Amino acid sequence: MQDTTHLGKRRKIIDGLEKVTGNARYAADLTLAGMVHARPVLSPYPHARLRGIDARAALDLPGVVAVLTGHDLNPGHAPHSRSSMLLALDEVVFAGQPVAVVVATSEAGAEDAAGRLEIDYEVLESVDDAAQAMTDELHVWPQGVPRAGTGMASLHGGEAGGQGSENLSNIDERRVFERGDVRRALEGAHVVIDRRYTNARVHQSYLEPHAVVAQPGARPGEVTVYTSTQGQYTVRSEVAGTLGLRERDVHVEPMTVGGGFGAKYGILDALVAAVSLHLRRPVRLVLSRSEDMLTTMPTPETAIRVRLGADAAGRLVALDVQAVIENGVFRFGHAGIIATVIGGMYRCENVRIETLEVLTHRAPVGAYRAPGVPQALFALESSVDELARTLGQDPLDLRLLNAAQTGDPTGTGFPWPDIGLKACLERAREHPIWRSRGQRPGEGVGLALGGWPGGFSPAGAVCRVEADGTVRLHVGSVDISGVHSSMVLIAAETLGVDPDAVEIVQGTTDSGPYAPASGGSQVTISLSGAVLDASRQVRDQLLDLAASHFEAHREDVELVEGHARVKGLPGKSVTLGQLAQLGQRLPGGPGPVVAEGRAAIKAGAPGFTVQLVHVHVDPDTGQVTPLEAVSIQDVGFALNPLLVEGQMHGGTGQGLSIGLYEGLHFAGGSLVNANFLDYAFPRATDLPPIEAVIVERPSEHGPFGARIVGEPPITAGAAAVANAIRDAAGVRVTELPVTSEALWRLMQGRASHRP
Amino acid sequence: MQDTTHLGKRRKIIDGLEKVTGNARYAADLTLAGMVHARPVLSPYPHARLRGIDARAALDLPGVVAVLTGHDLNPGHAPHSRSSMLLALDEVVFAGQPVAVVVATSEAGAEDAAGRLEIDYEVLESVDDAAQAMTDELHVWPQGVPRAGTGMASLHGGEAGGQGSENLSNIDERRVFERGDVRRALEGAHVVIDRRYTNARVHQSYLEPHAVVAQPGARPGEVTVYTSTQGQYTVRSEVAGTLGLRERDVHVEPMTVGGGFGAKYGILDALVAAVSLHLRRPVRLVLSRSEDMLTTMPTPETAIRVRLGADAAGRLVALDVQAVIENGVFRFGHAGIIATVIGGMYRCENVRIETLEVLTHRAPVGAYRAPGVPQALFALESSVDELARTLGQDPLDLRLLNAAQTGDPTGTGFPWPDIGLKACLERAREHPIWRSRGQRPGEGVGLALGGWPGGFSPAGAVCRVEADGTVRLHVGSVDISGVHSSMVLIAAETLGVDPDAVEIVQGTTDSGPYAPASGGSQVTISLSGAVLDASRQVRDQLLDLAASHFEAHREDVELVEGHARVKGLPGKSVTLGQLAQLGQRLPGGPGPVVAEGRAAIKAGAPGFTVQLVHVHVDPDTGQVTPLEAVSIQDVGFALNPLLVEGQMHGGTGQGLSIGLYEGLHFAGGSLVNANFLDYAFPRATDLPPIEAVIVERPSEHGPFGARIVGEPPITAGAAAVANAIRDAAGVRVTELPVTSEALWRLMQGRASHRP
Repeated sequence: MQDTTHLGKRRKIIDGLEKVTGNARYAADLTLAGMVHARPVLSPYPHARLRGIDARAALDLPGVVAVLTGHDLNPGHAPHSRSSMLLALDEVVFAGQPVAVVVATSEAGAEDAAGRLEIDYEVLESVDDAAQAMTDELHVWPQGVPRAGTGMASLHGGEAGGQGSENLSNIDERRVFERGDVRRALEGAHVVIDRRYTNARVHQSYLEPHAVVAQPGARPGEVTVYTSTQGQYTVRSEVAGTLGLRERDVHVEPMTVGGGFGAKYGILDALVAAVSLHLRRPVRLVLSRSEDMLTTMPTPETAIRVRLGADAAGRLVALDVQAVIENGVFRFGHAGIIATVIGGMYRCENVRIETLEVLTHRAPVGAYRAPGVPQALFALESSVDELARTLGQDPLDLRLLNAAQTGDPTGTGFPWPDIGLKACLERAREHPIWRSRGQRPGEGVGLALGGWPGGFSPAGAVCRVEADGTVRLHVGSVDISGVHSSMVLIAAETLGVDPDAVEIVQGTTDSGPYAPASGGSQVTISLSGAVLDASRQVRDQLLDLAASHFEAHREDVELVEGHARVKGLPGKSVTLGQLAQLGQRLPGGPGPVVAEGRAAIKAGAPGFTVQLVHVHVDPDTGQVTPLEAVSIQDVGFALNPLLVEGQMHGGTGQGLSIGLYEGLHFAGGSLVNANFLDYAFPRATDLPPIEAVIVERPSEHGPFGARIVGEPPITAGAAAVANAIRDAAGVRVTELPVTSEALWRLMQGRASHRP
Repeated sequence: MQDTTHLGKRRKIIDGLEKVTGNARYAADLTLAGMVHARPVLSPYPHARLRGIDARAALDLPGVVAVLTGHDLNPGHAPHSRSSMLLALDEVVFAGQPVAVVVATSEAGAEDAAGRLEIDYEVLESVDDAAQAMTDELHVWPQGVPRAGTGMASLHGGEAGGQGSENLSNIDERRVFERGDVRRALEGAHVVIDRRYTNARVHQSYLEPHAVVAQPGARPGEVTVYTSTQGQYTVRSEVAGTLGLRERDVHVEPMTVGGGFGAKYGILDALVAAVSLHLRRPVRLVLSRSEDMLTTMPTPETAIRVRLGADAAGRLVALDVQAVIENGVFRFGHAGIIATVIGGMYRCENVRIETLEVLTHRAPVGAYRAPGVPQALFALESSVDELARTLGQDPLDLRLLNAAQTGDPTGTGFPWPDIGLKACLERAREHPIWRSRGQRPGEGVGLALGGWPGGFSPAGAVCRVEADGTVRLHVGSVDISGVHSSMVLIAAETLGVDPDAVEIVQGTTDSGPYAPASGGSQVTISLSGAVLDASRQVRDQLLDLAASHFEAHREDVELVEGHARVKGLPGKSVTLGQLAQLGQRLPGGPGPVVAEGRAAIKAGAPGFTVQLVHVHVDPDTGQVTPLEAVSIQDVGFALNPLLVEGQMHGGTGQGLSIGLYEGLHFAGGSLVNANFLDYAFPRATDLPPIEAVIVERPSEHGPFGARIVGEPPITAGAAAVANAIRDAAGVRVTELPVTSEALWRLMQGRASHRP
């Protein structure tokens, strides 16, 4: 435990009250003078020629301002990603693609009018899934796959590298990451486990659907976008790039985010900005739940074959992975991330990972908290579990024997910075759930590893002290996970003030400061250094002012509880507000108390987790009931344990839900369960009690030793559930989510095959 | 001339296009969702008991939301200034004081309803002018004059000091500033000039009346104020202090200002904020021209007696001044400013300045560009002119002989920093208008000195370079005089970019940076250092990044035209945008390209002026026609000569107008010409061609040698006109404005007395 006053202590999230009292301001809450409402009209067909749109009946309705089609908003270049897509021109390439926008003075009016559009589609043959895509009989992009500079995946700290091959077919990209000689190692292995795992697409299912309000600026081509986003700078670039505007003319104001999970980098912003510039009016577009599920960017379906070879002692000698990733209509780039993690959890000399990114006529996929990793580790950790069973070894011991350590290579070859995977395993070994497993029939305990390398980026931050003693902390990163609350603690700790005296000012693209988007678990890691730098500079300024005020030596002055005082003379003190006033007034003085901090850390602070899940399996129905879950995570140093546990709870719940419930179902290329009645989003009662066990093995690079926190918790749950089911029911599930029916069939098969 | 690329060159004002195309956003332009409109109801009586307000007929009108009186908005403490005044409770103390606010869904609706209020006043005896006030027969504040900590006058850089005496009578404050022995010096003088000068109140007559929109925040007691103000921090303090709110809960967004001239520090902000918090709705209040003239803060009436003693050679030996300043109902504090200047223009060993600040039942006075100085110098410079005439000396030579120089004391005793008054006189001596004076009957040329010490305050500023190469300059000072345009040039010069690549971001109280209010001619002086500091830091950051990028020595890299390049290798270059991207991406690098600059200069950079005015006086009507004016001003270094000339033209015009046209006329304590039909605001044809002659005698403390610019031009015009009239018509005017009738009577008197 570090010697701290505020850091490391449990403290409520700063925007909690505002949120529970309904005072937080979301994009959908915004009402601007003269604002009109837009409703998108989505294609029901995965692939069709758009022959015409008859808007007459719609335009007859009172309050309807306009019906806009792709030809009205044509930016003059083809989209290469979901967010650069405005409206379909002549061809629709996925079910859920917007083909028109109806604008009216009320949302209901726009909705009514949208129902009156007559759209003439010529339905075309579609590429509905990865298997069909890989036959290459029908090409999604017969003119070649549209590409752009930077993929969204890079925002998540995924690694580039490996071999890339260009391919004009539906197999958009094939990459191979290799070390050692896998073929020979598999041939020489004492035991080989060879299995193939699949999973359904999953939607991020944030509470707040995508919402954007755009308002034209004074200059032609100038626009302000109010949006639910994880990164205002990302939105700015996307809007400017898509619409051909100057970046400096696009002003993005990030609003409170009602759940992001990787999906809120901006999808509709360019579209709404274009409508607003076209009509010269403020325009609001808020998706319905169903539209949100149809037209945004869920996770990919993957099919991952894992071949695992070990020697008789259980030491891994070979790992051979082939991952097929179904991306929908556009490239995305999960390959690097999946390879990094799947090939980096264990020390193994011979590794080969082949990834195939495949295009279909489906909504393009996107990022969801640790993109691709829950699926990848479901495959890897299920196979490792099988390996232990085949060898008759304890699955925890086998993992301890092989677990990666500091300096071992990841799947894409870079060495891990210091990591605490083994420390988590040691802690799991002591846990009562693990020690008492196997005692009740029909129940089982599964264990799985998880982890995430974590991103990191340069960032700036401003700290200023105001005349009333308020410390204002200006940050550029959006708060989606309580990170602002941690920044407040860092400033409070550094300046010796109560955290209530610190106010966060969320930056816009105009106000700055520059900071990375809030994703890839990187915000705390990236931002803390800048906040610390700014706060320390301000601390020095305050000490200087106080020393001069008291006519004392600088080293004899201290900052305590919002005051500066001379050490040993507690009666003689001055408030920070008074010092700030001095700075604002003193001729020839140092100037106002303020500093801009900058930081750019050199390496990441990866976070690893071990999760234990205890389930009951009903032998008659195949129903799985999760009874308890334990999430053990090395967070390095918990800046605010309450919020760290919140992240662990949320992520663990999502991981279990990926394992047991959630899946987008398609029929003929069209999504059939685009709503929360049919999509199995868990209720609170569907999840077990989750115990969060914090391990603090300080990171070398993270602030105060802290590691990334947000993404690791989601990565292990699906695998741990699968291993628990194996423990309880004796069967190996290979398809996510695990439905009762599928499990029952599997159990029947085992019953018939192995009497 | 300094070796500069952008500084010192004529360049259009940056917000000119926005303003002439109608795209600038003033407070009155703002429309917020749910916003209602407020109309103030003003007392027609200078002093009355408010017996009751019957609002029933008003509330019957459709769209009327509320009629609020002082009891609805009672803050629980008495006002001590115009801006801390909400609505009258039981007593009205000036004609024009708001007694109620009518709120409706439309401005016209509120106006109609306001007309239906039945207000029961019991008219009381009032103190109508300074002469009556000084009899102390009726006290404006029988319970004692309300006081507060800091007067508004301090914002204008006026000097404190001198002796103050507390007085419970209508003579609110009497101060005496003294050096040497005036009585003895006057007795021993070769010649003594003894005259008394008076002037009418003058209104600042900005084009945009006061306008405020306030919106309640999410928290109780939280409010955002959009306002036409010269200083958002001043408004924040005033609103928070008046309404008992936390400063951090008051958010002030300064809007484009349509003319300030000292009057836009915030008058209605607390009132509108209170209405908005009371109704929990956004509220807009925009004064009509007439209301604006009735309820805001014009200049004081003054009566200034000057006794001037000189030896036979024309050397000043004594200056004895008694100034009576009529402040209206609240104290203001012109005394220090008037004393500083009137006692500081000339080197004189024996000076005594007595100031009496007197209260009446009139609207409280406020600041108007060089507050009090046009009136004070009208008195001083008229007397100096008379002295020269009495001694038979050239009035320019006499002034050169006596003019204050660097280190001489001001009227309040502090020594002038380096000043260039004599340089202006030397330049005037060469001017054709001066050299050819006295050649035509009925015409005359007058000369007068003017000047202003100028304020200066600490300030911060942020400079950041964005990925697209845009340089964003964040400043906290409001632009009322083109100062942002100068800041752009400083950044462009420092960073070697085109000024069009630099964008100004106007700060709010939340975003910062901290900077002084835009008044007292201090903004350029105060802000430049911070902008320069920030820009230089950014320049260093860019050079470091470029050196590392080129693998060159830092000293071999230069910034030229938006690029960094290795000296001598013009082909090898990188844009500033690319360097910014490096900063935003480089792991372990320096971080984003950004710096917060701070500055707090030690001493001011006073600005002096000499003005020549050439008039024709019609002997039959007394009509004065100004034929030409020359404004010679030492600006140290003209950062942008075009804008400096603009300031000189505007100020000179205002000074002439104070001399010849403008005056608020009262009858029985009530203003009778509160509109632009009856108030003699000059048209363009009423002013002569004005020639601006820039003198550049670098200041020691100002940025690049620049001096204050804004206030000096207004200070000399009235005196110069009076001296020109004396030259043309042989009579000495002692009352401002000089009306044809008064002058004709004076000329008649001279004709009868001196045949």
